[in-house]
Amino acid sequence: MEMSSVMAKEKDYLALGRELAREFALTAAERDANGGTAKAERDRIRKSGLLLLRVPKEYGGPNVDWKTVLQIVRELAVADGSLAHVLGYHYLQQVTPHFFGTLEQREKYYRGSLRHNWFWANAINPRDRRVILTPEGKGYRLHGKKSFCSGSKDSDMLVVSAIEPDTNQFVIAVVPSMREGVVIRDDWDCIGQRQTDSGTVEFHQVRVEGEEVLSNPGPGSTPFATLRTVLSQLIQAQILVGIAEGALEESRKFVETRPRVWSGVNNRDDPHILYRFGKMWTHLQAAKHLVDHASEQWQEVWEKQEQLTSEERIECAIQVAVAKTFAADMGLQVTSRIFDVMGASSTNGSLRFDRFWRNLRTLSLHDPLDHKTRQVGDWFLNRKYPHSEFYT
Amino acid sequence: MEMSSVMAKEKDYLALGRELAREFALTAAERDANGGTAKAERDRIRKSGLLLLRVPKEYGGPNVDWKTVLQIVRELAVADGSLAHVLGYHYLQQVTPHFFGTLEQREKYYRGSLRHNWFWANAINPRDRRVILTPEGKGYRLHGKKSFCSGSKDSDMLVVSAIEPDTNQFVIAVVPSMREGVVIRDDWDCIGQRQTDSGTVEFHQVRVEGEEVLSNPGPGSTPFATLRTVLSQLIQAQILVGIAEGALEESRKFVETRPRVWSGVNNRDDPHILYRFGKMWTHLQAAKHLVDHASEQWQEVWEKQEQLTSEERIECAIQVAVAKTFAADMGLQVTSRIFDVMGASSTNGSLRFDRFWRNLRTLSLHDPLDHKTRQVGDWFLNRKYPHSEFYT
Amino acid sequence: MEMSSVMAKEKDYLALGRELAREFALTAAERDANGGTAKAERDRIRKSGLLLLRVPKEYGGPNVDWKTVLQIVRELAVADGSLAHVLGYHYLQQVTPHFFGTLEQREKYYRGSLRHNWFWANAINPRDRRVILTPEGKGYRLHGKKSFCSGSKDSDMLVVSAIEPDTNQFVIAVVPSMREGVVIRDDWDCIGQRQTDSGTVEFHQVRVEGEEVLSNPGPGSTPFATLRTVLSQLIQAQILVGIAEGALEESRKFVETRPRVWSGVNNRDDPHILYRFGKMWTHLQAAKHLVDHASEQWQEVWEKQEQLTSEERIECAIQVAVAKTFAADMGLQVTSRIFDVMGASSTNGSLRFDRFWRNLRTLSLHDPLDHKTRQVGDWFLNRKYPHSEFYT
Amino acid sequence: MEMSSVMAKEKDYLALGRELAREFALTAAERDANGGTAKAERDRIRKSGLLLLRVPKEYGGPNVDWKTVLQIVRELAVADGSLAHVLGYHYLQQVTPHFFGTLEQREKYYRGSLRHNWFWANAINPRDRRVILTPEGKGYRLHGKKSFCSGSKDSDMLVVSAIEPDTNQFVIAVVPSMREGVVIRDDWDCIGQRQTDSGTVEFHQVRVEGEEVLSNPGPGSTPFATLRTVLSQLIQAQILVGIAEGALEESRKFVETRPRVWSGVNNRDDPHILYRFGKMWTHLQAAKHLVDHASEQWQEVWEKQEQLTSEERIECAIQVAVAKTFAADMGLQVTSRIFDVMGASSTNGSLRFDRFWRNLRTLSLHDPLDHKTRQVGDWFLNRKYPHSEFYT
Repeated sequence: MEMSSVMAKEKDYLALGRELAREFALTAAERDANGGTAKAERDRIRKSGLLLLRVPKEYGGPNVDWKTVLQIVRELAVADGSLAHVLGYHYLQQVTPHFFGTLEQREKYYRGSLRHNWFWANAINPRDRRVILTPEGKGYRLHGKKSFCSGSKDSDMLVVSAIEPDTNQFVIAVVPSMREGVVIRDDWDCIGQRQTDSGTVEFHQVRVEGEEVLSNPGPGSTPFATLRTVLSQLIQAQILVGIAEGALEESRKFVETRPRVWSGVNNRDDPHILYRFGKMWTHLQAAKHLVDHASEQWQEVWEKQEQLTSEERIECAIQVAVAKTFAADMGLQVTSRIFDVMGASSTNGSLRFDRFWRNLRTLSLHDPLDHKTRQVGDWFLNRKYPHSEFYT
Repeated sequence: MEMSSVMAKEKDYLALGRELAREFALTAAERDANGGTAKAERDRIRKSGLLLLRVPKEYGGPNVDWKTVLQIVRELAVADGSLAHVLGYHYLQQVTPHFFGTLEQREKYYRGSLRHNWFWANAINPRDRRVILTPEGKGYRLHGKKSFCSGSKDSDMLVVSAIEPDTNQFVIAVVPSMREGVVIRDDWDCIGQRQTDSGTVEFHQVRVEGEEVLSNPGPGSTPFATLRTVLSQLIQAQILVGIAEGALEESRKFVETRPRVWSGVNNRDDPHILYRFGKMWTHLQAAKHLVDHASEQWQEVWEKQEQLTSEERIECAIQVAVAKTFAADMGLQVTSRIFDVMGASSTNGSLRFDRFWRNLRTLSLHDPLDHKTRQVGDWFLNRKYPHSEFYT
Repeated sequence: MEMSSVMAKEKDYLALGRELAREFALTAAERDANGGTAKAERDRIRKSGLLLLRVPKEYGGPNVDWKTVLQIVRELAVADGSLAHVLGYHYLQQVTPHFFGTLEQREKYYRGSLRHNWFWANAINPRDRRVILTPEGKGYRLHGKKSFCSGSKDSDMLVVSAIEPDTNQFVIAVVPSMREGVVIRDDWDCIGQRQTDSGTVEFHQVRVEGEEVLSNPGPGSTPFATLRTVLSQLIQAQILVGIAEGALEESRKFVETRPRVWSGVNNRDDPHILYRFGKMWTHLQAAKHLVDHASEQWQEVWEKQEQLTSEERIECAIQVAVAKTFAADMGLQVTSRIFDVMGASSTNGSLRFDRFWRNLRTLSLHDPLDHKTRQVGDWFLNRKYPHSEFYT
Repeated sequence: MEMSSVMAKEKDYLALGRELAREFALTAAERDANGGTAKAERDRIRKSGLLLLRVPKEYGGPNVDWKTVLQIVRELAVADGSLAHVLGYHYLQQVTPHFFGTLEQREKYYRGSLRHNWFWANAINPRDRRVILTPEGKGYRLHGKKSFCSGSKDSDMLVVSAIEPDTNQFVIAVVPSMREGVVIRDDWDCIGQRQTDSGTVEFHQVRVEGEEVLSNPGPGSTPFATLRTVLSQLIQAQILVGIAEGALEESRKFVETRPRVWSGVNNRDDPHILYRFGKMWTHLQAAKHLVDHASEQWQEVWEKQEQLTSEERIECAIQVAVAKTFAADMGLQVTSRIFDVMGASSTNGSLRFDRFWRNLRTLSLHDPLDHKTRQVGDWFLNRKYPHSEFYT
């Protein structure tokens, strides 16, 4: 395994993230056209050391605070929504044993991450109940197919959800991507987020050891153990904001560099163009403050670990829900309306400026926005909120 | 020339348009992926007789009323924005001699259309001043390049704008697409309206006869002669509405045929999905009434011909401006928000449901929407409106 | 009874309505401040002959078409939402025997209207179940209170809904406002529509004759008999549009007559002010076309009378629902945003420009807009629509 | 002078502000109806000690940080927009000598504030150029009328702007409200913010001493000295957010305490009502984060005092502009749409729930929102921003 032997000082991680963002931006349009696996960029991430930021100090990791980590995800999204997605979801899977597993499992997978620089991915879509985990000897057999497995291609470790036939409940296991019987299909073809490799993973009678199942305390068992969903939503919120910021920055550059006169007015002085820029940037600022605030709350609830109460969990989940739904609405507007400030020539196919809308539109459909807003309203009015669901 | 020998009765033209729309819908997604020239579909249009609807009775044509003709354009747009565009713009070019030319030219080109079933296109972008028309003997030479020439590929006749060096004014000429020196490049690549062939046309010292120049009365000479822009805008408005309607209909079909349960609620009973459908359909109805009303006003001003006053021209232009800007805003919302009712699986790349937004976004940038809205406001407040411009 | 002895020719009714609107506009702000009953204006309406427009020819009336009648209501609303409301609701009550009653009742009340120039009102709020109708001899006794009785004060005839204890169903009766035991309270005090006299009516053991109960065919018995709700909604839609138009016209006059310079730009040339005017006027046009279209459909379904099918009834109800919800949303925007074009000085209390928003906001809450939009969506998606309800 | 002899510990000021807010909320609707001067409430503020929060420690004051002070203003606005306005503008005037005056003037007015518990107000409207300051002996005479003088009635000290005839420039002076020749008219009558006493102040040959004129460094002389406008805008932003929050809280209480069933659904479970609550609360959160962030930036630039650079001033002004325009748009929506969740009975006149919209609409017109948004866009695109204006 090859990686940056000396990790940068903590304050430099953000700079490192931005450096990668600058690199990835250069090829983002081209890679959007190609789709498929961003192998070179994934390897660049591997070498950068960014995969390890969340490994705790007690296991030898840098334990970078969540706000920085999430900001790195967002800055990557400014350049490339897909790579931000695979990195963000890597963190989500990497800490999954921390939520659901024993102390031993937590240690095992954090240390393994550090030693092998694993790129984590998931095969967890809870709406797809086709994967079954049946006991066999001291372990299990995993069989079936799972869709929407973000980051699976070129991954090292998979977090998998499966139905246990006896209980008809989901269980979560960690399975190396290279294990015999695991087939990761290259079948992801979507209008946006085209390099997230969110395709199908097949499990052909895959052997799973007992200690690979995260059943103690298990999903949803404690307030802390239900936080995984909140983190998933927060990562999405950050990426949505990042994509919108990328769109707005690109449109600024376009207008800066392409003088255009209409009705005798230069585009850089056009009151309607300035107004639209002002409005879009204003809404972007609002979204940034919402996700920043949610990240800070997230750091707090994370630090409470098993002391976390259900009420605190809900307070954080609400902030995340607010940030995500606002970011989605804002982003749909911004990514669609940048064209009004750029004008007709910005629809040139080679520029691929539509990718911002396609990326944001795709990601924003992860779970229904309207349901989330209604749940926020239910909490505001009735102080009711789902204790724990896969999407709240 | 091969075409339907017996034209359908007048009331059947709309049915004919719908029949073609149904055919074209079957391959719209695939052709959006391919881009390029819709050769088979263009030939299907040729054979259908639709190219001739606007030829006046006095020259042997069916003289179908504008409302029907424009509705046919809109219904095509429900299926395929590109084909609606090329057909709509065909009508626009075909009647251009009627606006700008002498009675002899009017007759010549209408009769020629009828005899040869010409597919008209344009090389007219007034913001591109590179094409020059210089006198030579009794005629002229045309030289230079023109961008955004919708429908040019596979066309039979071109309406061309060029600068006359002496006056630095635009003149308009009609040139057969096959004439020596005309090179129609296959370089249209845009995020939307991908089969409109709106690429570059090159004129290499092309011979133009004196009677091919439409200079009597010429562009902008009378209120009637300034109507060409209004028609252009009205065609765009119809297509914008059609694209949005196509998007909404597809999303209905998708939801009808793909049951999906979320939080225990079937998608067909989900109040948020029903609400979004209700809102989108409501706004679509508003847009349809606006374009229908504008079409009726258009038929009226058309019938006034040279009796048309400047005031009547403006009244009609305002209605068209209102219809177009409303349709664009409505359409941007609808084509983006259909995904919220369909859910994540609708982003599947093979469905290409993003094409509605891409098509509408591309077409809606023809000229800046905000300027048009401001002009409408200037008229409402101050009774000021541009007497005649290329975009109003 | 004193009234215009010679009714104007049919084409002059609209002019008459506009004349009254001009008169009422002069005192609208002052009367908004006062609230209470617009006695002088109601008498002016009485004398004008407008109360009789819908009396059929067979009973000696002018039978003015619905589109004209509804446009008169809208034009009154441009000047004064309250007076438009009482006139619109007068028509609604006046034709109620036509929907629910026998041919004899229809004739009796139309002829009575013509002879006595009755101003009709209602005590019908179906959500208020406190009024009871109990049999007594050949007739009944009416007892209890009813809220939201628009136009009741100074009315001549009341359409009343009451619960029949045996069936627990609503029945509808016609009761003269002056009958012994009827007490019309002057307790209407609302933020808007302040002169609609929509207060409480008390019935103290009021005698009702058998032939005053409209039970054959009775409410909801046939598609035609369910149309009363549709008419009620259509009248509301017209008034909503009228109020918004009034607001926009007032803001135009204000800007025209009050020069104001900001950042060196005159308000009449300010691109943002022009843009806002353009946008508001555009949306107003959309709403006007929707209500006009709905009025035309309404005239058609009205003419079908007992031949009307349930499907046709729904088609019309949907158009009305679309027009009303669009008008409400548009109107809330326009009446709130006119201040942005007028500036701070327009908030001067004596101008009472807030009355447009207060009127529109009040009327638009008659029944929940969101439910209606969801129902429209349910129809679009599932072809489901309530067969007949008091609010659809 | 009578006031709380012992000021609460710093952390208790916010609690104190909330206590007053609770008191004022009880009579807010009634006082909105009355208009005029909120004498009892102003005296309550006087006694509370809140007038002194910003007096620096070096002059014996508590020097409460700006974020707390501004939050107190916002919390008052939740209860009553007018009282928040007079308190917020009190702080603005109280620190005006700090921006424009000498160290001696700064000390004089801070110490005077502390000793006499002055309630400050302004007569400063820069668009009203009728007040003239002419030299007379060692001092001046002030003469003329000034409009929009918020808080002037019942005030102790006035900050006045006047034209110096020689230079035609504005100068700023501090004049006791009781001085001979000062007449504060009771002529404020507006649709909203009805108890801000923002009426006319007349100056009848009022004597002004030389040391009462704030001319060293004077307005706009340094980046710090241009900050007064930024503070004014920030106070407005806080009040706008507070008004919207008050509206939303009232609507929640209304729905909580008034069960209502529609189409068989209880209002507290109605998905559309919950959705609207969720949306409004989400947007309110965004606005709160924006104003909080702006307050923090404000505290920073304040602390830089004369070290403040022009660039830092602009950065802060932009954040404030973003917060204010967002708050205004959000607030217009929330104060208008709360009625949709409450239903028709909430338009009852005695509840005066329209006051939130009227207050917010009135305050939000202080200067044109669209201009500000365009300026934000100009900064985003071109890095241009007005160095210093009275409204930016």
